[in-house]
Amino acid sequence: MPVYLDAAGADFKTQFTALLGAKREDSPDVDATVAAIIADVRARGDAAVLELTARFDRLDLTPETMRFSTAEIDALIGEVSAHEREALQIAADRIRAYHERQIPEDASWTDEAGATLGWRWTPVGAAGLYVPGGLASYPSSVLMNAIPAKVAGVERLAITVPTPDGQANPLVLLAARLAGVDEIYRIGGAQAIAALAYGTQSVAPVDKITGPGNAYVAAAKRRVFGRVGIDMIAGPSEILVIADRDNNPDWIALDMLSQAEHDESAQSILITDDPAMAKAVEAAIDRYLHTLERREIAGASWRDFGAIITVPDMDRAAELANCIAPEHLELCVADAEMLADKIKHAGAIFMGAWTPEAIGDYVGGPNHVLPTARSARFSSGLSVLDFLKRTTMARMTPAALRAIGPAAETLATSESLEAHGLSVTARLNHLNEH
Amino acid sequence: MPVYLDAAGADFKTQFTALLGAKREDSPDVDATVAAIIADVRARGDAAVLELTARFDRLDLTPETMRFSTAEIDALIGEVSAHEREALQIAADRIRAYHERQIPEDASWTDEAGATLGWRWTPVGAAGLYVPGGLASYPSSVLMNAIPAKVAGVERLAITVPTPDGQANPLVLLAARLAGVDEIYRIGGAQAIAALAYGTQSVAPVDKITGPGNAYVAAAKRRVFGRVGIDMIAGPSEILVIADRDNNPDWIALDMLSQAEHDESAQSILITDDPAMAKAVEAAIDRYLHTLERREIAGASWRDFGAIITVPDMDRAAELANCIAPEHLELCVADAEMLADKIKHAGAIFMGAWTPEAIGDYVGGPNHVLPTARSARFSSGLSVLDFLKRTTMARMTPAALRAIGPAAETLATSESLEAHGLSVTARLNHLNEH
Repeated sequence: MPVYLDAAGADFKTQFTALLGAKREDSPDVDATVAAIIADVRARGDAAVLELTARFDRLDLTPETMRFSTAEIDALIGEVSAHEREALQIAADRIRAYHERQIPEDASWTDEAGATLGWRWTPVGAAGLYVPGGLASYPSSVLMNAIPAKVAGVERLAITVPTPDGQANPLVLLAARLAGVDEIYRIGGAQAIAALAYGTQSVAPVDKITGPGNAYVAAAKRRVFGRVGIDMIAGPSEILVIADRDNNPDWIALDMLSQAEHDESAQSILITDDPAMAKAVEAAIDRYLHTLERREIAGASWRDFGAIITVPDMDRAAELANCIAPEHLELCVADAEMLADKIKHAGAIFMGAWTPEAIGDYVGGPNHVLPTARSARFSSGLSVLDFLKRTTMARMTPAALRAIGPAAETLATSESLEAHGLSVTARLNHLNEH
Repeated sequence: MPVYLDAAGADFKTQFTALLGAKREDSPDVDATVAAIIADVRARGDAAVLELTARFDRLDLTPETMRFSTAEIDALIGEVSAHEREALQIAADRIRAYHERQIPEDASWTDEAGATLGWRWTPVGAAGLYVPGGLASYPSSVLMNAIPAKVAGVERLAITVPTPDGQANPLVLLAARLAGVDEIYRIGGAQAIAALAYGTQSVAPVDKITGPGNAYVAAAKRRVFGRVGIDMIAGPSEILVIADRDNNPDWIALDMLSQAEHDESAQSILITDDPAMAKAVEAAIDRYLHTLERREIAGASWRDFGAIITVPDMDRAAELANCIAPEHLELCVADAEMLADKIKHAGAIFMGAWTPEAIGDYVGGPNHVLPTARSARFSSGLSVLDFLKRTTMARMTPAALRAIGPAAETLATSESLEAHGLSVTARLNHLNEH
């Protein structure tokens, strides 16, 4: 039974606060283990990575076989059906087209003081992408992480993907090929993150690491942050659907279940101004939960974290959505544009009933790596900008320094930073003397 | 004695690697203390903050006096000289003008499949800015943090600034006023970060926290990250000057000392193709170190972390600069533009001998909050983007879903995510039936 809330009810504020505050993830404390693994890889390099791979993935590698050869990749890709190959190509093309529009512009201008100012964007030199093995080894995630990096102009893009018992996912390799990935290593866990961050004899270090992973991978990313850049630490997936009376409850139910089936900690919330729609969606979800392949996972998510909220009107729905700051937001309402204008905090918005969230997971074009756990209040989904950095530029002329230098001298004196002031004064004195 | 390296020397690679790897910061491990403070503030709110302020800042406050009143701010600002007021206004105006150009554009387009795609930028709702008390209480940092937030459109901007023994810095309050800060609290340390992140009875929580601080503040920011967004954790300041023979060694010396005087852990490096210039700059630094007010700090920095590197040519200088990825880079060379084109990794570039780094600290316009400790390889200085987040948008039409939906169905099946596929199938079936 999901939570059923009435936004007009007396207890609503308390109940809604409890819903927002529900702790959905119980991360095991693996920090000490991870610290030891990272120290081991830093100290012993390849030898440590190979030992840990033998232990955790039951796979004996050598420095030479740690990396997939081109022939191995070709052979595995050959196993992919034409049907799947075509679907992955469509996804890659659409994701690339969307992300190419994100490339930001450099700027340079000269202001009235005569100072030339601006900035320049440059790509990260090398990036590493962690891809989970086993069940959560998603080719779509490879596309979503690797394509923005390549669009940004990252010269060297390495993937680490564990292959427990030697099992590799041909679709992951194909996605890497389509995205232009340069190196693929069959290693995983904290040892892969350590190898990417610090380098080993066989794995050159990278500057930025992105991609999802289990608790060990997440803890390792936190630990190497600063040495390299990292993306966000993703929590369990979430969807909020706002629906009016004119909807097919089956569609809404499936959209909500497509989050719930990811993870027992996923959260699906429906907000509607129509109590009949609330009931109809709930009934449809119950029905699908009898037949869905992943009904155990989806059922647990819906039971423990699902919620249906009825509201008096759509303005109230927008208010609540802004409190929730959902990762995914579907607006299944007559005027989705008008409602979207009232949304301040959401990772991605899916407009209208013809835009199921699953389209965004694969082929819509926008990135599916999005801020979870209310972090859309302050952060964005993965983009080309995550693989670029900005260098600011300034050039003074003698005239510009005359115009604005004295203010810098004054402030340096106020802050008791004498050399700061003198570096300006020395130049101004020269101008006055010549 | 700073390190003296010759890029053409036999041992250069080893020596340069040692220079890059030098550990300049010895952060005390205050994590347990900080965890306890945060837990206390979460549990007891104002009461905990007030007790900690009494203990650490020797200042007895009440919930009512925790925040500066408008009258108190007016009175303190009245103490600022007209001269300083004007300098701060020039700085604020120039910083605002630069950052207004950073506001990114929203986008929306319809592709050939009929899908309407795009994104929208929205500001963080509330931001908190930590300002250190005492010696490092810099009004320029208030401008550099607060103005980008206000340019981004942040509605509520709060400052926390400790006032040990009740001592407040009038220039900090004036900078806050000029930047449009909404609330100023006289609290500091980990308790201030906890109050901003979790809220108390008197301090409403914020969504993003930026600003420099000591080891306690840095540890607290790391701990609340995820609950709120944070900016980078800044390390000690750095400058790299690349200079050719046509320079005034006094100017270069002062530019290098203006980093060294910040902090004993700061680092100043000169790269030159002219051994005579290397000697002349070293001599000038030695001379200034006899008279500079902060000669103890600057002297320790120069002695322990300073370096002079001679190179055969400027291409080699650019290569080394890209390895160093300096926070500040001065190009005091005949053709600064040509050299700048070869720089891939730097926080800020100062072009030509008329652009001392100190100009960028105060009045240039670009932000002075920049990536340290080689993190310019993967990150950028503070900007308007740090106070904005992007929501991606997608709208399918029936025709668009017909065009790209089947690829999504295929990939959902490949990834064993049945509900994902069914959410598309249900809609496509409806289209086929009607």
